[in-house]
Amino acid sequence: MADKRFTGVIPPVVVPLTKDRQLDVVSLDRSINRMIEAGVDGLFILGSSSEVVFSTDKRRSDIIENTVRIVDGRVPVLAGIIDTETERMIEHGKRAQDLGVDALVATCPFYALQGIDEIEWSFRCIHDAIDLPLFAYDIPVCVHNKLNTDMLIRLGKDGVLAGVKDSSGDDISFRYLVLKNEDAGHPMSILTGHEVVVDGAYLSGADGSVPGLGNVEPYGYVRQWKAAQAGDWETVKKEQDRLARIMEITSVTSGVAGFGAGVGAFKTALQLMGIFETNQMPRPVHSLKGENVEAIRRVLEANGLL
Amino acid sequence: MADKRFTGVIPPVVVPLTKDRQLDVVSLDRSINRMIEAGVDGLFILGSSSEVVFSTDKRRSDIIENTVRIVDGRVPVLAGIIDTETERMIEHGKRAQDLGVDALVATCPFYALQGIDEIEWSFRCIHDAIDLPLFAYDIPVCVHNKLNTDMLIRLGKDGVLAGVKDSSGDDISFRYLVLKNEDAGHPMSILTGHEVVVDGAYLSGADGSVPGLGNVEPYGYVRQWKAAQAGDWETVKKEQDRLARIMEITSVTSGVAGFGAGVGAFKTALQLMGIFETNQMPRPVHSLKGENVEAIRRVLEANGLL
Amino acid sequence: MADKRFTGVIPPVVVPLTKDRQLDVVSLDRSINRMIEAGVDGLFILGSSSEVVFSTDKRRSDIIENTVRIVDGRVPVLAGIIDTETERMIEHGKRAQDLGVDALVATCPFYALQGIDEIEWSFRCIHDAIDLPLFAYDIPVCVHNKLNTDMLIRLGKDGVLAGVKDSSGDDISFRYLVLKNEDAGHPMSILTGHEVVVDGAYLSGADGSVPGLGNVEPYGYVRQWKAAQAGDWETVKKEQDRLARIMEITSVTSGVAGFGAGVGAFKTALQLMGIFETNQMPRPVHSLKGENVEAIRRVLEANGLL
Amino acid sequence: MADKRFTGVIPPVVVPLTKDRQLDVVSLDRSINRMIEAGVDGLFILGSSSEVVFSTDKRRSDIIENTVRIVDGRVPVLAGIIDTETERMIEHGKRAQDLGVDALVATCPFYALQGIDEIEWSFRCIHDAIDLPLFAYDIPVCVHNKLNTDMLIRLGKDGVLAGVKDSSGDDISFRYLVLKNEDAGHPMSILTGHEVVVDGAYLSGADGSVPGLGNVEPYGYVRQWKAAQAGDWETVKKEQDRLARIMEITSVTSGVAGFGAGVGAFKTALQLMGIFETNQMPRPVHSLKGENVEAIRRVLEANGLL
Repeated sequence: MADKRFTGVIPPVVVPLTKDRQLDVVSLDRSINRMIEAGVDGLFILGSSSEVVFSTDKRRSDIIENTVRIVDGRVPVLAGIIDTETERMIEHGKRAQDLGVDALVATCPFYALQGIDEIEWSFRCIHDAIDLPLFAYDIPVCVHNKLNTDMLIRLGKDGVLAGVKDSSGDDISFRYLVLKNEDAGHPMSILTGHEVVVDGAYLSGADGSVPGLGNVEPYGYVRQWKAAQAGDWETVKKEQDRLARIMEITSVTSGVAGFGAGVGAFKTALQLMGIFETNQMPRPVHSLKGENVEAIRRVLEANGLL
Repeated sequence: MADKRFTGVIPPVVVPLTKDRQLDVVSLDRSINRMIEAGVDGLFILGSSSEVVFSTDKRRSDIIENTVRIVDGRVPVLAGIIDTETERMIEHGKRAQDLGVDALVATCPFYALQGIDEIEWSFRCIHDAIDLPLFAYDIPVCVHNKLNTDMLIRLGKDGVLAGVKDSSGDDISFRYLVLKNEDAGHPMSILTGHEVVVDGAYLSGADGSVPGLGNVEPYGYVRQWKAAQAGDWETVKKEQDRLARIMEITSVTSGVAGFGAGVGAFKTALQLMGIFETNQMPRPVHSLKGENVEAIRRVLEANGLL
Repeated sequence: MADKRFTGVIPPVVVPLTKDRQLDVVSLDRSINRMIEAGVDGLFILGSSSEVVFSTDKRRSDIIENTVRIVDGRVPVLAGIIDTETERMIEHGKRAQDLGVDALVATCPFYALQGIDEIEWSFRCIHDAIDLPLFAYDIPVCVHNKLNTDMLIRLGKDGVLAGVKDSSGDDISFRYLVLKNEDAGHPMSILTGHEVVVDGAYLSGADGSVPGLGNVEPYGYVRQWKAAQAGDWETVKKEQDRLARIMEITSVTSGVAGFGAGVGAFKTALQLMGIFETNQMPRPVHSLKGENVEAIRRVLEANGLL
Repeated sequence: MADKRFTGVIPPVVVPLTKDRQLDVVSLDRSINRMIEAGVDGLFILGSSSEVVFSTDKRRSDIIENTVRIVDGRVPVLAGIIDTETERMIEHGKRAQDLGVDALVATCPFYALQGIDEIEWSFRCIHDAIDLPLFAYDIPVCVHNKLNTDMLIRLGKDGVLAGVKDSSGDDISFRYLVLKNEDAGHPMSILTGHEVVVDGAYLSGADGSVPGLGNVEPYGYVRQWKAAQAGDWETVKKEQDRLARIMEITSVTSGVAGFGAGVGAFKTALQLMGIFETNQMPRPVHSLKGENVEAIRRVLEANGLL
C-alpha cells in the first residue's frame, strides 16, 4: 500500500529571492509556516516552482537546509533531484538525503534522446543508490517525454517508486494510472500536479495534489481535499471553480510566458499579499512589473485575497 | 442560452462497411436504433468515428441520408463538414443542410499553416453561408492547432457558434472554456469528446459528451449522464471506471495505432456483439484480425458485454 | 531509370485571383508563359502554392483545364491530388487524368492518424487506380508525417513512384534518398521543394527543383540548373545567394505567417512586377497590404526585379 | 572578423569508458592523437558526443583536464558548458576556463519554458561572466528551441558570440545565418554540426564542421575541408557521399535510438577499429552488442575502414 505520509495537499514551494537574487530566508519562513498552518499535508521543494533548474548546487542545498529546518518534522518534505541524467540525479539525491528530506522526486532523463528501457533503468538506478521513497515526476512539457503507464505500475509493484507526481496534462492516462495502481494493490501515491482540474483528479481517485497555486491560496486546496475525503463533490467543485479563477493570475499578464508567467505570477501575488518581500526572478528571467503586476492585483482583489 | 437540443450523450456514429467496403445500411440501422433505444440525446455523424476523411463526397451524402432516414427526428443529428479549408467546408455544409441535418460541426482549417485570425474568420464565413447551428470541433491531434478559448467565447457571444465539441485532451483549457461560457451567459453547449474522463468533464460543468465508445456501450453513458444531472457523483464515477475498462479495447491490440486501433476496435466490438456484420475498415487501413480480435473479445467478456 | 521529362526546374504554379476571388485566367496565362519562356522544364499545379486545399473541386478543375490549355504541351504538367485520404485522392487523380495532366503528385494521408503500412498502401492504391506517373510529396509541415526513405525506395523500385518532391526540410534524409535511389538504379526523379538550399540539393545529386520563388524569378533558377548540369558550382552558389535574398520577401512582412506570408508574398511580388492583377488570397487568408507590400517592394528593388 | 582559430574540421570528442564506466584515458589519448595527426583543426569536448549531460561535475573536469593535457596546444579546445540554466552554465564555464580550454560552447536554457528575450540575456550573462570566446550551440532536438537567426547575428555583432555550432537540421536557416553573418562583416565562425550534408554547408559558406563521425574517419573530413578551400566541389561531394555511407553505422542497428544509436555506433566502430578498448556507454544507456555490432562491422568493412 502507498505510504500514507504522501497524500493530500503537497504544494511545490515557491522560493523567495532578495533583490540581488539571494535566498530570502525570512520570506521563505513566513510562506512555509503559512502553508503548514493552513493544513497542507506535505511540501515539495526543488521542483519547477522552486526554480530547481535555475539553482546552483549550493543554492539547492540552501533551499533544502532551510526548508527542513523551518518545517521541523511537522509535515514530510519531498525534494526534487532534477537533472539531465542518472549519475547527476544520484548525486543530488545523496546530498538531499544527507540534509534530511523524506522523499525524492525524479523526472526521466532529458536533453539526450532516450527510450523507455533507459528511462526505466534510470529510476531503478536511483532507487538502488538511495534508500528513500522515490517519486516519478511526469512532466512532458519540460522533459519532452511522457512516462509510460505500464512502466510506472511495474516500478510501483517492484517497490522502486513510492508514487507519481503527474504534471502531464493528460487526464486520460492519469485515470488509467489510478485504475491500474488500484488493481495492483495501490502501491503508489498518485498525485496530480495541476491547479485547475484537481476536482476531476480526485473524482478519478487521486491520492493528493501538488498545486503551485497552493503557495498563494493553501486554504482552498485544504478545504477541497477534506471535502473530497468526505465525498462532498459539490464543495470540491465549488472550491475548484474559485481556485481556477485565482489561477488566472498566470494568464492575465502579457509579454511573458512559461516559467516567467507561472512562477512569476505566484511570486508577484505573494509579494502583493505581504508574504514575499520581492517578486524577484532568477536570471535570465525578468520579474513581472507595471501593468502585469496590476493585472494580478485585480484578480486577487476580485477573489478576496487582498 | 445554449440550445437545449444539444446536451447529454451524443455518440459519434461508427459507420459499418460490407466486406467490399460499401455502406452496410442494415448494420447502421441496427446500431443507430440501439443507441436511440438506450436513451442517447443526439447523434454526431461524419466525425472521425464516421471515417469522414476517408469518405468520398458521395459516401458522405449516403451516410447523412441514411442516418436522417433511420433517426426520423427522434434525436437531433449533427453532421461534420470536415475538410481542409473554408470554401470546401461550406460546400459540405450546404449539402448536409439539404439532406436535413440539425447542426454542423467544423474544425479549423488544416494542412495549410494559418493563424488565429484566419481560424476565426473561417468559422464566421461558414456561419454566414449556412443557416444551421454550428459547432466548433477542437481536435488538435488531427488538425495540429488548439482552438483558442477566448476566440471560442467571442464566437459564442456573437451567435456564430452554438457549441464546442472538445477532443483536445486539454482538461485545463476545457475547464476555462466552461467557466467563461458560464460567465458569458452560457451561449454555447460545451461537449467533451473523450470517453474515459467524462466524469471530470461533467463535474467541470460540461453540457454533454460525444463518446465513440457510446456506440459499443450507450447504456453506461446514458446512466452516467442521468446521475450527473442528479448530482450523484459516486455513480458518475463508478460508471466512468467501468467505461474506462471497456475502453481498453482500443489499447489491448498490437501493431496498430491511431484510427486503426480506435475505430478498428469499436467496429470489432460491434461485430463481436452482433451489431455489425463485419469490422471492415476503409482503405488504406487494415481491419483488425486474429489475436487482436481475441484481445478485444476478452475485454468485452470481462465487462459483461458478451 | 527516372523519366527524363521530370527533371530540372519545375515551379509550383501560384494561382492569380480576381478581387472577388475568381480565377484570373489572364494573369495565369501571363505568368505561365513567362516561366516557360524563361526556360523552366515543367510546371506543378495544385500544390500548396496553387492553394489546392483552399479550392473546391470545381476550382481545381478550372486550374487544371486552363493550365493544360495555356501550356499546350510545351512542358510537362504535374498535378497535385492533395486530400485527406486515398479514395478522395483517387477521385481527384481521375479527374486530373481526364483533363490531360502528365503526372500526379500525392502526399500521404493526413488528419487521421496512420502508420507507415497504411501510407505505403495508399500510394499503391493510387498507382493501381490511375495510369499516370505518380510523385510522392513529402511535406511534413502540412501532413505531420515524414515519408520513410526505405519505403520511398521500395515504391520506386516497384514502379509505383516516378519520383519524390521533397519539401521536408530534412537535408540529411534527402541525401540518403538520393544515394539510395542511385544505388537502386535511379528509378525515381528526386526533386527538392525548397527555394534557398537548392545548391546543396544539386550537389547532393537532386534531379531538379520545385521552387515557389520560381514564379517570381524563374530566370535565376534556370541559370542555376544549367550551371549545375555543367558542374559550375561557383555559379550555382552565386545564383543561390541571390535567390535567397529575393526569398526574403516571405519573411520581411509582419503579422502574417505560414501560407499567408509565403504565397501572399509571391502574389504581392507578382502584382508589383505587373504579372498578376491583384495579390488576392483565398478565404480565410487576408491579402498583404500597406507596409507589408512596401517591405516586399524594397526587397524586389534591392535585387533588381523592379 | 571571426577568429581564424575556430575554422575547419573540429570533431566533437567521443569519450571512451572502461568496462566499469571509468574514463579510459589510454583510449582517449589514442583517439585524440589520431584525429590531430589526421589534420583536424580543433576539438570540441563536452558536447553531446562527449556525453556531457551524463557526466558528473567531477567527470566533466576529468575530461577537460585530460584533453587539454593530451592536446597540449596543438589545436584549440572548445568545451561545452551544457546545463539547464544560466547560473549553472557559468559555474561550468569558470571551471573550464581554470582548466585551460580555449573557448566555451553553450546552448540556450532548457527544461523551463522560456522566450527569446531570456535566451538572449542568458548568452549575455555568460559572456559577461567569463572572458573566453563563446559559441552558441543550436540543437533544438535536445533543447526544444531553435535559436533565432537575427538574435545570433545581434550577439555576433555585439561581440558576445564568437560563433555558432549549428546542429539544428534546418539548412534554410543555416544559409541565412551564413549570409547575414557575411553582411555583418563575418564576426562569427559558423560551423555545421552535421555529418552527411557538410558539402552543402560548405557551399553555403560555412566556416567549418563539427562532425561526430570525425572521430571514426577524420581523414575524409580533413580532405573534404581542404577540397572546399580549394573550390574543388566534385571532391567535396565525393568525400561526402563516402562519409554518408560510413555514417550508416548509426542507422543499421535495431532496437536502439537517439544517443544510444549515434554515440553507441561511434564507440562501437572505434572499438572495432582498435582505437577504443570498449564500447561501454554511460548509465542508463545500454552498450551495443551482438548483431548490432556485426551490422556496424559490415558497414566499416564495406567502406575500407577495417
